[in-house]
Amino acid sequence: MNIPRVNNLKRVVIIGAGFAGLQVAKKLRRDKFQVVLIDKNNYHTFQPLLYQVATAGLEPDSIAHSIRNIIKKTKNFFFRLAIVHYINTKKQKIYTNIGNLSYDYLIMATGSVTNYFGNKNIESFALPMKSIPEALNLRSLILQDFESALLTKDEKKKMRLMTFVIVGGGPTGVELAGALAEMKKYVLPHDYPDLDIQHMNIHLLQATSRLLDGMSKKSAKQAYKNLKELGVIIWLNSLVKDYNGEIVFMEKNQKIESSNVIWAAGVKGAIINGFLKEDIKGNRILVDNNLKTIRYKNIFAIGDVAFMNKNKHYPNGHPMTAQPAIQQGNYLAKNLNCFLDNNIEMKPFIYKNLGSMATIGRNKAVCDFPYLKLKGFLAWIVWMFVHLISLVGFRNRVIALTNWIIQYFHYHKSVRLIIRPFHRKKII
Amino acid sequence: MNIPRVNNLKRVVIIGAGFAGLQVAKKLRRDKFQVVLIDKNNYHTFQPLLYQVATAGLEPDSIAHSIRNIIKKTKNFFFRLAIVHYINTKKQKIYTNIGNLSYDYLIMATGSVTNYFGNKNIESFALPMKSIPEALNLRSLILQDFESALLTKDEKKKMRLMTFVIVGGGPTGVELAGALAEMKKYVLPHDYPDLDIQHMNIHLLQATSRLLDGMSKKSAKQAYKNLKELGVIIWLNSLVKDYNGEIVFMEKNQKIESSNVIWAAGVKGAIINGFLKEDIKGNRILVDNNLKTIRYKNIFAIGDVAFMNKNKHYPNGHPMTAQPAIQQGNYLAKNLNCFLDNNIEMKPFIYKNLGSMATIGRNKAVCDFPYLKLKGFLAWIVWMFVHLISLVGFRNRVIALTNWIIQYFHYHKSVRLIIRPFHRKKII
Repeated sequence: MNIPRVNNLKRVVIIGAGFAGLQVAKKLRRDKFQVVLIDKNNYHTFQPLLYQVATAGLEPDSIAHSIRNIIKKTKNFFFRLAIVHYINTKKQKIYTNIGNLSYDYLIMATGSVTNYFGNKNIESFALPMKSIPEALNLRSLILQDFESALLTKDEKKKMRLMTFVIVGGGPTGVELAGALAEMKKYVLPHDYPDLDIQHMNIHLLQATSRLLDGMSKKSAKQAYKNLKELGVIIWLNSLVKDYNGEIVFMEKNQKIESSNVIWAAGVKGAIINGFLKEDIKGNRILVDNNLKTIRYKNIFAIGDVAFMNKNKHYPNGHPMTAQPAIQQGNYLAKNLNCFLDNNIEMKPFIYKNLGSMATIGRNKAVCDFPYLKLKGFLAWIVWMFVHLISLVGFRNRVIALTNWIIQYFHYHKSVRLIIRPFHRKKII
Repeated sequence: MNIPRVNNLKRVVIIGAGFAGLQVAKKLRRDKFQVVLIDKNNYHTFQPLLYQVATAGLEPDSIAHSIRNIIKKTKNFFFRLAIVHYINTKKQKIYTNIGNLSYDYLIMATGSVTNYFGNKNIESFALPMKSIPEALNLRSLILQDFESALLTKDEKKKMRLMTFVIVGGGPTGVELAGALAEMKKYVLPHDYPDLDIQHMNIHLLQATSRLLDGMSKKSAKQAYKNLKELGVIIWLNSLVKDYNGEIVFMEKNQKIESSNVIWAAGVKGAIINGFLKEDIKGNRILVDNNLKTIRYKNIFAIGDVAFMNKNKHYPNGHPMTAQPAIQQGNYLAKNLNCFLDNNIEMKPFIYKNLGSMATIGRNKAVCDFPYLKLKGFLAWIVWMFVHLISLVGFRNRVIALTNWIIQYFHYHKSVRLIIRPFHRKKII
């Protein structure tokens, strides 16, 4: 990879520039370490707003930021655009598509991937929304569907094209359903006057008995109410069994005909080959309460991919969201900076839940904070504010805010552009 | 195409939603005509700013605008996303990938495509910049090249990766060369500290004896001077003969080793099958001074694809730029609206040259107006102002302006994102 060893500095290799990886990369002291950050993209993705890219509200540049631009302090810092194939824990080496690299410390911050729970049909035909190219594909598909619906005289096909099924009632599913419902209300009738947009249906399918499982019951109810008002058809206790590209099959023999199934039903840790099975739990890497892997002293895992063993408060692992990732990145950087050399015992990582929130649409959101629950306009303002300040870089904030302000007053999504058409898989 | 005939209205089919097609579509009276606009994209592209998309200055959404959003007055207007394969002038029908459609009047506004002058090697290995996907490919390639240059220990390969050859010294070539030179100066040294950016070379090759052939000598000289100051290597009287993906061969046995050749050396009319050879000149459709084709009373051609026969002032055809296209679209709409039904003889189209301009970089541009030539900061301000007001839609103007202001003060291009990696063709 053409990275020289410098001044006997220990080399820390971080795999993944998501919330966790970026945080630790920014905070590690580069007078103590040579830091190598590796990611398969040259940008950091602000995943919580992917749904706005998918629904033509924002362009990628607002929610992505060049990694090289984020970490400008150049001393002893190297970024490499690479895909890591394998980790040799004995040789302390990683193997990538651009060559191999030895490490003194390795930080796994590889995040998560869409979880299809082993269903190959769903994986083939449903659309994920975990990356910017996937969100852009989804945007193209939504717009292409309406173009196709215009052309067909087959009423069944037209209905399938205009039916959207979102599987998963977590924040992603709720926000996406809300955004689609607002497109139906404000945008599509003007764009497609020769199409009866009333025929567009948006289904939100949730396996459990309530939406927003991670949030309060009150917020879940509010989200349910708001989505209903926007015309979203909500199915609770409805587990999806299969999808063949045209029909969604649910557990209780229920069916929905739809060409567009968006899979927001779950994620799983993104593991790289080289770990033992015993060290992995639920596709996440087992770590102790210092985020160190069980087996290897010099390998750590943070963010979505880390599963803290025997944690009292989070026996099923920390939530796979931005907050734990950022806090873990921060914690690990501090520890590595201060303690590692001196072998002082580290304090355990404790996750501080700062709250969670979801937006449903214009003036509609829900926020759960430790001592406060908000809904409606105020929650929506808070949601926007928190997401704006969380975006990386002054420019991204300004551009996103400008887009939101214009959309608020113009009632339309601006970037309804099919830049790269999405090619649907053929149904056999 | 599922478009019903209405109320005995004559149907006008417009192929192409560039400057010309969009203008005529907007201005045609829909109480007199049913208007069908066809384009292969669902957006209009503001081509003069494509080079900023390629050089990470703007995202596509600033220079593209949803066609459905532009033409909101829905009465008797239909847009179809389609590729036209063939025109049957006898049956008065067009044949597309989504079906066929009959017309009463046909307006060819198909624009132009990159002209490789028949050289298949150049077509294979050089990169065009005529569309948004092409500009995005170019952006990805530029950024990927620097990532690759970091990795190689082969000095020759590194040089090739860091050498950019722009063929064509018209406004596109000049603006692209200037933007690349500014990336070299302000952006890349910070992004790639472990790479000696001084080794980056930007060559601008022009076949004739001066840059900006369509502009005044004074402006051409100024552009030459500015580009030189920015470190661009300018080759005049240098015709490119061939390119094999690694070496550019020029007529006088000169060579430049480069992995990146950007082809801005010419365009040619985008003809659709169905016209007779005699009706085409230099790949443009021959029209009379009313923009009507020579052979068919009910077919018109406007913009880049039209060649006005025996025109005194423009014996080689009107410039293939935005201004003639807009004026012709406007003229044709007026004529069709007023005269056609009454068979009144039309006044000939006269192109009014409003001037031309090119920007070289920060505070550097040249403008030729009929009675005024500008250079430097003032020209740059005028250039920005004209381009801003020419962008379609309030939002696009605000977003582009915001980007420009931030770039002006931050000295960096914001969207250095490789969203879809570009796959270079393999050299055999």
